[in-house]
Amino acid sequence: MSSDDALRSLALPHVARLHAYTPGLQPTEPGWTKLNTNECPYPPSPRVAEAISREMGEGGGSLRLYPNPKSAPLRAAVAKLHGLNEDNVCIGNGSDDILNLLVRCFCTQEIAAGFTLPSYSLYPVLVEIQDGRSTVIEFDRSMRLPFAQIAASNARAFFLTSPNAPTGVAFGNAEIEQVLQSFRGLLVVDEAYAPFARENAIPLLARHPNLVVVRTLSKAHALAGLRVGYALAHPAVIDLLDRVRDSYNVNRLSQAGAIAALGDTTYYEGIVAKVRATRDRCIATWVAQGWFTYPSQANFIFTEPKNARGETGPAVARSAYDYLYRHKVLVRYFPSHALTASFLRISVGTDDEMLVLQRTLEAWLKHA
Amino acid sequence: MSSDDALRSLALPHVARLHAYTPGLQPTEPGWTKLNTNECPYPPSPRVAEAISREMGEGGGSLRLYPNPKSAPLRAAVAKLHGLNEDNVCIGNGSDDILNLLVRCFCTQEIAAGFTLPSYSLYPVLVEIQDGRSTVIEFDRSMRLPFAQIAASNARAFFLTSPNAPTGVAFGNAEIEQVLQSFRGLLVVDEAYAPFARENAIPLLARHPNLVVVRTLSKAHALAGLRVGYALAHPAVIDLLDRVRDSYNVNRLSQAGAIAALGDTTYYEGIVAKVRATRDRCIATWVAQGWFTYPSQANFIFTEPKNARGETGPAVARSAYDYLYRHKVLVRYFPSHALTASFLRISVGTDDEMLVLQRTLEAWLKHA
Repeated sequence: MSSDDALRSLALPHVARLHAYTPGLQPTEPGWTKLNTNECPYPPSPRVAEAISREMGEGGGSLRLYPNPKSAPLRAAVAKLHGLNEDNVCIGNGSDDILNLLVRCFCTQEIAAGFTLPSYSLYPVLVEIQDGRSTVIEFDRSMRLPFAQIAASNARAFFLTSPNAPTGVAFGNAEIEQVLQSFRGLLVVDEAYAPFARENAIPLLARHPNLVVVRTLSKAHALAGLRVGYALAHPAVIDLLDRVRDSYNVNRLSQAGAIAALGDTTYYEGIVAKVRATRDRCIATWVAQGWFTYPSQANFIFTEPKNARGETGPAVARSAYDYLYRHKVLVRYFPSHALTASFLRISVGTDDEMLVLQRTLEAWLKHA
Repeated sequence: MSSDDALRSLALPHVARLHAYTPGLQPTEPGWTKLNTNECPYPPSPRVAEAISREMGEGGGSLRLYPNPKSAPLRAAVAKLHGLNEDNVCIGNGSDDILNLLVRCFCTQEIAAGFTLPSYSLYPVLVEIQDGRSTVIEFDRSMRLPFAQIAASNARAFFLTSPNAPTGVAFGNAEIEQVLQSFRGLLVVDEAYAPFARENAIPLLARHPNLVVVRTLSKAHALAGLRVGYALAHPAVIDLLDRVRDSYNVNRLSQAGAIAALGDTTYYEGIVAKVRATRDRCIATWVAQGWFTYPSQANFIFTEPKNARGETGPAVARSAYDYLYRHKVLVRYFPSHALTASFLRISVGTDDEMLVLQRTLEAWLKHA
């Protein structure tokens, strides 16, 4: 037996079978129009870099000391922002950290975690890492929330992305409340994209102890590079997450930068409004040219390309993706599910970036 | 049933029973002499803050983009530093992240993770979070490595801290190699403090595929606030860790700062030499006054205080700890194990800080 095989045989069987989550491409060469990972096309508030420099101190001197283990000042800032208490807040090293903690608290081989298909493709990866059971509920093309199915499911914790990824379709609080009223488990509403939506589930927290809302600063706050996300929930749920959380999960600079970002609501209202305007204009363009496009409430658009012969389908979507890629426009294509295989997911960039995209798609139409 | 009870009953039973790891106190008011969490008393290389500022870019613009998901440039820098290949390296959000990944890959209810007592108190916490089995091997006061017991243990992965925490005693490569030759599992040598020691286990990696060496930048590199650690191991082991690792576990600024730190070996050789000199002088002082003190090869000292009547023991150690605390000198006291309850663990500070400590201990001797 080779060393490789001998070492792999030491690992837990489910780990040896795992496939790592595939993040979107992060090209390092310049020249790409990068519309593939739902990053914000605008820089973060200038207060963020100032706060980080201040936190480092003269010559980086503060970095020798451990961060606040509970991210306590950041918890306080998040609580204040949402009109909650500090014990309603847990801070993660990105919202992926929070999602992982939830899986570790509420899912085993016998106890299922639930999620919809399509949705954020990290959920099944986290469940597999936990060697857990999963309950999968499929959307149909209407993207209406199957709330009765979710409420009746055997999941201990159910992950619902709203606005959904990759379609951008948001679910209203009336529908979410219907789930909360009859579901016996914990409903985790993953609101990574909620700052771009008309409504969010935070007001429901006061009435529903079985609701967890997850947020990230990676999208609307333009801080994907800093890794900060958080959970809002009943104190008993937060207490569970804290027991499983790494005690120094969020570093000094991320804590300081996040506090500065959350304090600059005026700046962020401005860039969110710009992203929405660009998004709605692009959706209108594609709808006008006859492309089926979901009514996105996120910072990306899920559209079904139609070639010059009026055809749609996986081959057409793949052709558009490949053409864009060859011309250094990076979008995301999810071939593995029937509901997504005919679509492209396009992050909303600046108006200039969307013009590059639009022109490249027009060129594809001529060549395809 | 209250909401609290209902929510707790949703959690996995082992999670509901967990107690979170207790990190050392991080006082926020000024005036403390902080010798309790083995931070470096000197600032990091000035290149670190420069690299972080450069990485942020104009107005923090780069922070809107996700970090390199594999920390690839940092892996390359670590590999080069240790004369290894990039596929021998996995980067963690602190070495605690790496330790957690190892537990998740190699430990279940049926398959034990092993560790010694005393050692880093996070290991049992990580095993409990995993609802895993543990194998505990006790040191005796001699702190000789029980290598035959480790080699014969049923652990799939065994965590050995070298230099040991909290005693500071280091184990030689000859002894570690004796374990590696007969142990059928993975030996994880946690070298958080190895830069302060005479020897380290990295040269053994070439001969022993079942060795994992774990390092951190929190101690010798004065970057506890940045959260960077790493594993060095056979590529098959690194591949397993990467499957379980969060895909964006290390943020942009931490990656850039760590690369800068690892590049400034001259600076760090200087501060490591200063810490060692202060350490050895303090040990000599305490030994000369008749306090049993382990021959530390780390950046802390484990000493058994003796009061003016020549008594030692838990009550004496507690009295010294309390007196120091009341006079705003913070050290660490571990009352829960017979081998540690008569001792204090004192991080090596600057010469000035150690003078404050020494004078406060002299005052305690007069009052105790």
